[in-house]
Amino acid sequence: MKKDFLIEHIKWHGKSLSVLDQQSLPNKIKWLKASKIEDVFCFIKNMHVRGAPLIGIVAALGLVVHLKSKKINNLSVLESVLREAKDILSKSRPTAVNLFWALDEIGKVVIENKSRDVRDLISLIEKRALSIWQEDIENSRSMGEYGAGLVSDGDGVLTHCNAGGLATGGYGTALAVMFKARERNINFRVYVDETRPVLQGARLTCWELNKAGIDYRLICDNMAGYLMSKGRINKIFVGADRIAKNGGFANKIGTYSLALLAKAHNIPFYVVAPMSSFDPGLETQCRIIIEQRGPEEVIRIGGKFIAPLGTEAENPAFDITPPDLIAAIICENGIIKPPFNLIK
Amino acid sequence: MKKDFLIEHIKWHGKSLSVLDQQSLPNKIKWLKASKIEDVFCFIKNMHVRGAPLIGIVAALGLVVHLKSKKINNLSVLESVLREAKDILSKSRPTAVNLFWALDEIGKVVIENKSRDVRDLISLIEKRALSIWQEDIENSRSMGEYGAGLVSDGDGVLTHCNAGGLATGGYGTALAVMFKARERNINFRVYVDETRPVLQGARLTCWELNKAGIDYRLICDNMAGYLMSKGRINKIFVGADRIAKNGGFANKIGTYSLALLAKAHNIPFYVVAPMSSFDPGLETQCRIIIEQRGPEEVIRIGGKFIAPLGTEAENPAFDITPPDLIAAIICENGIIKPPFNLIK
Repeated sequence: MKKDFLIEHIKWHGKSLSVLDQQSLPNKIKWLKASKIEDVFCFIKNMHVRGAPLIGIVAALGLVVHLKSKKINNLSVLESVLREAKDILSKSRPTAVNLFWALDEIGKVVIENKSRDVRDLISLIEKRALSIWQEDIENSRSMGEYGAGLVSDGDGVLTHCNAGGLATGGYGTALAVMFKARERNINFRVYVDETRPVLQGARLTCWELNKAGIDYRLICDNMAGYLMSKGRINKIFVGADRIAKNGGFANKIGTYSLALLAKAHNIPFYVVAPMSSFDPGLETQCRIIIEQRGPEEVIRIGGKFIAPLGTEAENPAFDITPPDLIAAIICENGIIKPPFNLIK
Repeated sequence: MKKDFLIEHIKWHGKSLSVLDQQSLPNKIKWLKASKIEDVFCFIKNMHVRGAPLIGIVAALGLVVHLKSKKINNLSVLESVLREAKDILSKSRPTAVNLFWALDEIGKVVIENKSRDVRDLISLIEKRALSIWQEDIENSRSMGEYGAGLVSDGDGVLTHCNAGGLATGGYGTALAVMFKARERNINFRVYVDETRPVLQGARLTCWELNKAGIDYRLICDNMAGYLMSKGRINKIFVGADRIAKNGGFANKIGTYSLALLAKAHNIPFYVVAPMSSFDPGLETQCRIIIEQRGPEEVIRIGGKFIAPLGTEAENPAFDITPPDLIAAIICENGIIKPPFNLIK
């Protein structure tokens, strides 16, 4: 994929980490530095970084930040420091499985290299964290390649939230499909759901599509059904935060409604996600835990109250889409069609 | 209905009109005065007043404002001045039929009283404009009464946009149902769609429910499907801007999606509207004109840009719901069940 489409939003400094603040975009380009695990926790919890694959990458690098901030003389101290870091990070956001997957990947390095010198082991852990990031970039490329084959001239393609470079190591999941389709000179338009309450669509997806020179239109979340009824949207591509073995998945709030609307209009609904988002430990989507966030995100926009004092709000960050609404799941290994039986 | 639930938001001064500015609510209580027809046009066009029945009332009073601002010596001058006012106002917002209905009602007064002295005739026109307003308040009461019979203890009731006192002469359409149910001491909770882009739900409906002491929760537009899937919403009440003879109707953008989601979850979807919103001249909903508003409402919230510079946006103000998604239409004369064959 063209280097132009790569979003550079993570910098690794050996002992610390800088991330592009996704809460400040698109109005302000601001970098945040994490020198300790609590910084990383806060970045994830408060959505300065977000997007399932990116959370995994940042969590893995966060473990390294923590290991390097401590004096570690032997394996037992290393294991204890690592456990401490995992305990902190696993409390940040519950829904995206990539966080837990990345922490497990780091755990595997320790299990497989217990006989090594601890400094070598820390070095191997750092290497693995960086390779999780690099693999994610490669996976994005593959997903983009497979997905672009589904985009045709004249398409009106809808996407929700941000499943772009900012949500991953560099190119995105659903947006990797758009970047690749653009590279192939396919003429299509992207409709971008603004994605209240945090406005990842308006703020982040528009920013990425704008940079990439892709034709796009911003819409409010409640407009997608109307555009489908008018025949202006004929394909939907979204990311995923956790996919159960049967293909049912969690993604940003609003995804389930879009999938139902797509079904009613006979529009194919595609999920684009790396295998690190698969949770084959879950037979079905029913037991995925949905993060409930505070009401402030709903009641205020840009610091300004939009509802009268005393208003309470619901704020589920995700919802659950059952497998019967999905046309296909696109991962780095190809296009998977239903019935789904996902294994890693 | 309890006087407490009446929203006083129009003041008639004999030659001019004051309205509560609905763009400033809920953060600021601000009244706007119209002394000429252009003011009234601007109030409607820029949504300082909105809601189909209210637009009708304000348009009727607007005609009177215009008549009283001119020197009118004979019937022919009166008719010409009235035509001029109608031409201006009918260009304000195309979708709500109440505007055109109210203008026609005033027209009827002229046709039926051509032999009168012009001063008497203007007086009769003023009387009719004021009676349109009073009748609307009475209609609200009736709709509330009929609709409240559909609300039960434990219900989670969803409403979209603002179909409250602010959208009408005083009590509302969908919200009149809530006010009446509250009066009957039914225990229910209202879920309020924030209703982007203009946030009538967050700003206006929450304000009315808050004042009335009704239990409510604000949600983003993309959350309704999730709450339906969780069994937390079991009835939907919305208003209407124009209802065709077959029951198909136009209402605030997002309504159609809610109706489809309701169908998928087997949730009854009720439309609450006075007969002044019926357009029996239209056989079906297919030819209702949807107002397309400027992109600024989508791209900016509270004056602040939410998307990068250069972003274009769609902004259909309404959408169209077909009759097969409607459980019943509640008007001042009762509850109408499908198949619909609406006559005035």
